[in-house]
Amino acid sequence: MRHFTHIADLGPDGVHALLARAAELKLLQAGSGLSSGLSSGPGSGTTHGQALPKTMRDLSLGMLFLNPSLRTRASFEMAMHKLGGHAIAMDTGAVWNLESDEQAVMNADRPEHVKEAAGVLSRYFDVLAVRAFAKSSTLGEEHADATINAFRRHASVPVISMESAREHPCQGLADMLTVREILGQTQGAKITLVWAPHIKALPRAVPNSLLLSAAAAGADIRIAHPPGYDLAPQVLTEARALAQYSDGKISVTDDRNEALQGAQIVYAKSWAPSAEFARAPDNPVLKAWMLGSEHFAQHCPEASFLHCLPVRRNVEVSSSLLDSVHARVIDQAANRLWVQMAALEWLLA
Amino acid sequence: MRHFTHIADLGPDGVHALLARAAELKLLQAGSGLSSGLSSGPGSGTTHGQALPKTMRDLSLGMLFLNPSLRTRASFEMAMHKLGGHAIAMDTGAVWNLESDEQAVMNADRPEHVKEAAGVLSRYFDVLAVRAFAKSSTLGEEHADATINAFRRHASVPVISMESAREHPCQGLADMLTVREILGQTQGAKITLVWAPHIKALPRAVPNSLLLSAAAAGADIRIAHPPGYDLAPQVLTEARALAQYSDGKISVTDDRNEALQGAQIVYAKSWAPSAEFARAPDNPVLKAWMLGSEHFAQHCPEASFLHCLPVRRNVEVSSSLLDSVHARVIDQAANRLWVQMAALEWLLA
Amino acid sequence: MRHFTHIADLGPDGVHALLARAAELKLLQAGSGLSSGLSSGPGSGTTHGQALPKTMRDLSLGMLFLNPSLRTRASFEMAMHKLGGHAIAMDTGAVWNLESDEQAVMNADRPEHVKEAAGVLSRYFDVLAVRAFAKSSTLGEEHADATINAFRRHASVPVISMESAREHPCQGLADMLTVREILGQTQGAKITLVWAPHIKALPRAVPNSLLLSAAAAGADIRIAHPPGYDLAPQVLTEARALAQYSDGKISVTDDRNEALQGAQIVYAKSWAPSAEFARAPDNPVLKAWMLGSEHFAQHCPEASFLHCLPVRRNVEVSSSLLDSVHARVIDQAANRLWVQMAALEWLLA
Repeated sequence: MRHFTHIADLGPDGVHALLARAAELKLLQAGSGLSSGLSSGPGSGTTHGQALPKTMRDLSLGMLFLNPSLRTRASFEMAMHKLGGHAIAMDTGAVWNLESDEQAVMNADRPEHVKEAAGVLSRYFDVLAVRAFAKSSTLGEEHADATINAFRRHASVPVISMESAREHPCQGLADMLTVREILGQTQGAKITLVWAPHIKALPRAVPNSLLLSAAAAGADIRIAHPPGYDLAPQVLTEARALAQYSDGKISVTDDRNEALQGAQIVYAKSWAPSAEFARAPDNPVLKAWMLGSEHFAQHCPEASFLHCLPVRRNVEVSSSLLDSVHARVIDQAANRLWVQMAALEWLLA
Repeated sequence: MRHFTHIADLGPDGVHALLARAAELKLLQAGSGLSSGLSSGPGSGTTHGQALPKTMRDLSLGMLFLNPSLRTRASFEMAMHKLGGHAIAMDTGAVWNLESDEQAVMNADRPEHVKEAAGVLSRYFDVLAVRAFAKSSTLGEEHADATINAFRRHASVPVISMESAREHPCQGLADMLTVREILGQTQGAKITLVWAPHIKALPRAVPNSLLLSAAAAGADIRIAHPPGYDLAPQVLTEARALAQYSDGKISVTDDRNEALQGAQIVYAKSWAPSAEFARAPDNPVLKAWMLGSEHFAQHCPEASFLHCLPVRRNVEVSSSLLDSVHARVIDQAANRLWVQMAALEWLLA
Repeated sequence: MRHFTHIADLGPDGVHALLARAAELKLLQAGSGLSSGLSSGPGSGTTHGQALPKTMRDLSLGMLFLNPSLRTRASFEMAMHKLGGHAIAMDTGAVWNLESDEQAVMNADRPEHVKEAAGVLSRYFDVLAVRAFAKSSTLGEEHADATINAFRRHASVPVISMESAREHPCQGLADMLTVREILGQTQGAKITLVWAPHIKALPRAVPNSLLLSAAAAGADIRIAHPPGYDLAPQVLTEARALAQYSDGKISVTDDRNEALQGAQIVYAKSWAPSAEFARAPDNPVLKAWMLGSEHFAQHCPEASFLHCLPVRRNVEVSSSLLDSVHARVIDQAANRLWVQMAALEWLLA
């Protein structure tokens, strides 16, 4: 039985295969003559989307949100729906917390164990999608990725991640699909991941997934962050092995300007090595990492700008950059739809 | 591209056209021989609703609730479903607040801007429905209607209002469809809108929409409220222009009994000119505005009673009135379904 | 018009009929060659589930959760979907509380009356499903079952319970379907219901429904609980009448070991006669009622173990029991799907 909770579930060949399928599905929908409902109008909608194969017909997706979501929820439900299946979103976090410790005496605030929750939901649904952040972003919790791994152990149907402590793999695939569309290929793509300031200590799942996906896809990745804001050594090691297989490159620096020089894709994201780390707005050194269109003008005037969203304007990134021709963040978010369709098909193939 | 967030988007001719289409859709469903599932039973359901044209087939509706909802959510989702489309309800308010200020430095409690939210969701859905009240009911915030107008600016698909600071236009249409059913027409309908007491300072979106819809539909409207509880001058001016076009009338008084005399339709609703206004239960003068069946007996024994719901029994209106033959509030709420179907069709036509 | 909010709505013959239909539906799905989506894969899904009759086609289910839910929500929505219908889940509790007192002056925290809510929702949906616990578990509130009974009075479509103060009838049917599958029949089944410790005072809806369903199905029921933890006398009286009709038996004891001796089915559940009752973890006498696999080894080595879930491991029941071959709790929860399909069909027949 397949699961897709980490890029390692696909490997480099799987990443390439899913990107190709996602691009194919997107073309099929475009080929139906309708990029959106706008040009259709009532009645003519009949042909819209029928070009998409109904590969999920009679299949159901149970989506469990232990943390809230807007983009992920909408894009997963529509991905399942467009392929003919049925999706149900459950705000598990709003209902109750789930215990994942196998030895727990459950006398506190977690009234149900993943053993039972995953077991039962596997009987109602054909696939389970789970969003389960860590409470904080310590390296240990990130690496253990306890909740999503407990779902893998205890579900009797495929499990797909909608972001966990360690990775947000569908975001990583959407990032690479966008790179593929902008540059024609991912191989050798000069991608710079730059740290961005924020008012909160954020987890590393998104930068981890960008790094792992880009490495698997053969990109030339430069990472720039302030001293002390390193990504996890386990993730860097895994990414370097993927890059070696795929003939990609990875380098890390604390000199942002050098990292931006000649970049084709610039990806901004905030993260913190732990919840205790300095909040960026209180620290002028960190605040200076806010990215603006002036950095593009100076170092990489042809580059495209990506961000996973939501983005805090004029905190992480300036409005001038987000409103510039560099920004491809809406296209990037739209690509969640297609990679998730491809991932659902792969899980059930 | 069409939007429907204010009655002005339709104009008087559009209001008439949508009411006619809503009535037609309702007849089609009735003509299928089933007013509800009750008389069908398993199996026979196959013909139920098939008389309705599947004008939304392969189209999707993203519903964003920045404020909670019961009636609006159920009726919008079922409207889309009955026409063959797919709707997703998202409690955006439960996830995070959206920033609509174009210049904001987003370092506070609003982690996402409408620019990104509307842009992205436009790529997942064919229509966006948005519920976005103002935090309070100041005239300035009501008139600016910042959040819904930001969605209009930044969405690349049609936007429909599920109630905003200034208007609740689908409620207004449902009100007029109900008047049309009761009286046979809206032209010249003697409609009295009476202010009602409440425990909270409520916004004016519902009375504004009743007034604008009724004026557009050519009704003879009398508004009765306590001194100081005026509707916004901009809304009254707009309504007077609509009434002039449609050969309707508008008058305002603080004498409720006079306003009830000879009314065919009585519509009760509470509103306040600002959040600071006196709470009705603390004020015997205001409390006396609670409407009862005795007022109907005395002033308008043939009149029908409308209210947008939810209604606080024995605070806004007496139980005796709500349980009397005057009350048509359930029919009125049921009509949300049909006007929303007509509005969805109009948006995508 | 039919409702299904209490086992009394079915009676013993109805319980047997619904269990038979549920088993038949389950066989139809199994007969389609697919017990889950796992073995199908994209494309082949077309035949999956088509063996199920689409008896709910063009029908809609409105699900109102005045209390949160995971299992019940997922299984009800999938039950409706698998039969071709459409279900909408509404977290009414998150929106606002509903008033059920017919005489209320609604000036507090309940802005809508069930009269209006049930009346309106009956116009959008063909069936209403309602979850409405009592705030506490006093005998009076349990017996009055005010909210669900108000929905019965005021809805103009069938109402089905997703658990109320007094009963959780679909859970009771799922329990009996599981017994039927394990033992081949429910008649004469030796079922022991044992009280379990918990950190909260829980309502009696689940043990009530197990008792009433098992009595209606002709089982031989033994109930074991600590002194003072009696079930409601009205429920026991009703169960004894059902047992008499169905040739079943009911006995009550405070000697757990005696009650376990020779049991075929052991059902653990916590409940309290009132919210004021002693919390189990503070009381060593109560704590000793935690059930473990050692009790099965000693008293009923062939017995199967049931629990309605969620279950607090190592508080109510030991992990060793839940992870043993005795446990059938996942099968039991899975059976919610089939009995709810049968109940929906029965309501609309």
